[in-house]
Amino acid sequence: MKRYEQFAEEIAALIRNGVLAAGEKAPSVRQASRIYGISQSTVFQAYYLLESKGLLVAQERSGYFVRAQQQAPLDEPKVYSQSLESHEVAVSELIFSVLNSLRDPNTVPFGSAFPDPSLYPLARLASCLSRSMKQMPEHEIVSDMTDGNSELRRQIALRYSQIGMLLAPHELVITNGAMEALSLCLQSVTQAGDLVAIESPTFYACLQMLERLQLKAVEIPVHPRDGIDLTALANALEKLPIKACWFMPTLQNPIGATMSNERKQQLYKLLQQHQVPLIEDDVYSELYFGNTPNQPVKRYDQQGLVMHCGSFSKCLAPGYRIGWVAGGQFTERIKKLRLMTTISPAVPSQAAIADYLQHGGYDLHLRRLRNTLEVQQGQMLAAIARYFPAEARVSRPQGSYFLWVELPEAVDSLYLFQQALNKGISLAPGPIFSASEKFRHCIRLSYGYPWDERSEKAIAQLGLLVTQQLKS
Amino acid sequence: MKRYEQFAEEIAALIRNGVLAAGEKAPSVRQASRIYGISQSTVFQAYYLLESKGLLVAQERSGYFVRAQQQAPLDEPKVYSQSLESHEVAVSELIFSVLNSLRDPNTVPFGSAFPDPSLYPLARLASCLSRSMKQMPEHEIVSDMTDGNSELRRQIALRYSQIGMLLAPHELVITNGAMEALSLCLQSVTQAGDLVAIESPTFYACLQMLERLQLKAVEIPVHPRDGIDLTALANALEKLPIKACWFMPTLQNPIGATMSNERKQQLYKLLQQHQVPLIEDDVYSELYFGNTPNQPVKRYDQQGLVMHCGSFSKCLAPGYRIGWVAGGQFTERIKKLRLMTTISPAVPSQAAIADYLQHGGYDLHLRRLRNTLEVQQGQMLAAIARYFPAEARVSRPQGSYFLWVELPEAVDSLYLFQQALNKGISLAPGPIFSASEKFRHCIRLSYGYPWDERSEKAIAQLGLLVTQQLKS
Repeated sequence: MKRYEQFAEEIAALIRNGVLAAGEKAPSVRQASRIYGISQSTVFQAYYLLESKGLLVAQERSGYFVRAQQQAPLDEPKVYSQSLESHEVAVSELIFSVLNSLRDPNTVPFGSAFPDPSLYPLARLASCLSRSMKQMPEHEIVSDMTDGNSELRRQIALRYSQIGMLLAPHELVITNGAMEALSLCLQSVTQAGDLVAIESPTFYACLQMLERLQLKAVEIPVHPRDGIDLTALANALEKLPIKACWFMPTLQNPIGATMSNERKQQLYKLLQQHQVPLIEDDVYSELYFGNTPNQPVKRYDQQGLVMHCGSFSKCLAPGYRIGWVAGGQFTERIKKLRLMTTISPAVPSQAAIADYLQHGGYDLHLRRLRNTLEVQQGQMLAAIARYFPAEARVSRPQGSYFLWVELPEAVDSLYLFQQALNKGISLAPGPIFSASEKFRHCIRLSYGYPWDERSEKAIAQLGLLVTQQLKS
Repeated sequence: MKRYEQFAEEIAALIRNGVLAAGEKAPSVRQASRIYGISQSTVFQAYYLLESKGLLVAQERSGYFVRAQQQAPLDEPKVYSQSLESHEVAVSELIFSVLNSLRDPNTVPFGSAFPDPSLYPLARLASCLSRSMKQMPEHEIVSDMTDGNSELRRQIALRYSQIGMLLAPHELVITNGAMEALSLCLQSVTQAGDLVAIESPTFYACLQMLERLQLKAVEIPVHPRDGIDLTALANALEKLPIKACWFMPTLQNPIGATMSNERKQQLYKLLQQHQVPLIEDDVYSELYFGNTPNQPVKRYDQQGLVMHCGSFSKCLAPGYRIGWVAGGQFTERIKKLRLMTTISPAVPSQAAIADYLQHGGYDLHLRRLRNTLEVQQGQMLAAIARYFPAEARVSRPQGSYFLWVELPEAVDSLYLFQQALNKGISLAPGPIFSASEKFRHCIRLSYGYPWDERSEKAIAQLGLLVTQQLKS
């Protein structure tokens, strides 16, 4: 065994024994070199090895941190089977009252839907805005409203090609964020009264949209690691006249599950068999941890049955409101619906992102962003393990910036939400993620902001509030 | 009579006699000074006087042009009374096929919905984009998505105050262009199957939106000068369960009518009496000719019954996709609907326009734009009078950039549209402005692009095609 391997084994042991906890910083290279009496290059070699084994994660300019381990001290959340029924959706008002209360900038932002804006290259994007708009031929300010910026569509098609998917730029419809893409997709394949299969728990905006369009929800359970319950889905497709599915097979919000490629393929086959279109909400896929990019279900789509919705809002440019959909056989319908509702997303936003993608640096930015989020995940997981009751269960998603925490059933998350807010802490209570008011004892916590003493205290406070509820 | 008054009278006579035709350039100041043997300052004084009398119009850096006269050689279009009935709307496909054919950049753009992009301060806006985004505190890139840019809302409220209207910034909802504002307003007060009163002819996007939302249209005739037929509207409100009105009381697209303030007030009283909300589409109001700004119907609104929709797309920043609505009692509902459909308009677009408005120059830009459009209107009106058959009737709007031409009834404008397109000329055929395929013998022509030899030839060609249809 070489010296660096030996040293790596010592550090690995510290991690396994819990001496170095998830999210904690490993000794700096200089420090380790001094303490262990080895060369800095030996330390580097050891840390590279530990990184490749998934034990450490490098964070730009900050050093190496302990990755959240496979065997976390808390169990993962359970899956709740659902009875086969459809629901009118009526949770918008609850969702709005929750979202509204999250807006105080002084609260600890565990309820936030966006990560810290400082994680994005906003200054460079501002330069891209100016440069691209100054170079744009005048007539394009009008013509780009119909087709979308052609360079942007080319760049998006290029990114698909990097994961082995060949999509023609004309299949891509640029939209006002993924939210508009999802709304147009849903409208392109449903009418009021139709049944739509959604996940349980699901992204609350999906529930609001179903409610607005008077669609009925058929809730399909999501396993915290494996994703959509395919048996339950097959059963629902067999027995109910489902017109569309709206799923997030990769880094599902709120539960964090990513389906394996094999299960994604099975999902597609099931939909193909029943000829039910899939609206694939894939806005977190770039935020994966590790080295393997995610593959969308769209990858297996030979019939144009999948509408694949992406966005730059979570991974590059929040506030620019640029999303897209690869619409398959529904592309023309989606284009027309967009012309009839908002005409076009902002031309400057499209041009700036096209310019940014063209001039490089996106992959470097993404690598930094992913590493930062991964470190922050470890920090939050460790804090939850320290302060929450041992019966609490928590998800360990392989990316994105949300944890799903299942508390003992006696805990009322809406009450917890109010209590926490009074203490200056925001969180997202479980019932806003369900058409049928499930998940009353669950909460979603965001680790999208840098971990600091205030975060640690806030998790301790939440743990205390939970314990108090259990005792009362 | 002073010398300049005498000279002004001579020029006025030339105009009245048709020696100087509408849209033609008056002699330059230097030229006139030489020919008439008077000082340049006398010429200036005379031209100022003629401008104030509405006979000449000044165009930045180009000199003085003859304003389109009150007594144009062609009559104005007729008003068609309508039977009192509601219609399912199904013209979207026709509209899309027409819009699609307008996209060839080599056609003469008489069918265009936007004026020449070179009329807008695009370079300055690009600088505003960059400056405002570099100065923006990071957290606002996310927080501005909920409430909209506060400086932009303040600037819009300031502009309302300049015409004597006091609106609180929190009544203003920023939207993805006026199109989204109109769509959200309609959704906030109707449900599928409801009746909506619209104008006849009307803006085609209104028809598409009604169709998409499965609303039924009750068409109210619009007089080419006076605007909405209030008697017909009163009758409709009396007899039919109308849930909302969608009107454009100022510079109506396509017919160009502007209701007088008195008639706007009558309109409001009628709606108040029946408690029917008004969606006031007011996107052209800044493009008035002359010196008197338009007043919206919203001005008379004491109950918050009027949703006043404005936009920067036609008067400042095409492609930026920034509109707004002063939503009255429906404001909260509209805000929520926006959060559920697109979340927010682009933050950079909002910031750039706020920055532009804050740093001044908007009114100067508008004055130039109005003058340019007024001169171009005169040029097109004169050409139509030269080349179209004498039975043709044409509107003389007091602003904006559209003429509504009513051809002899034997003319089929859809056929004319195809023939013209084959000759490289675009136009908007009448039937796309009606829920019941009226206006088959009408066309809308845009004078939003600079007048040149090609425009002149194109109008001559259109005149020829019309004459040929009449002979066949």
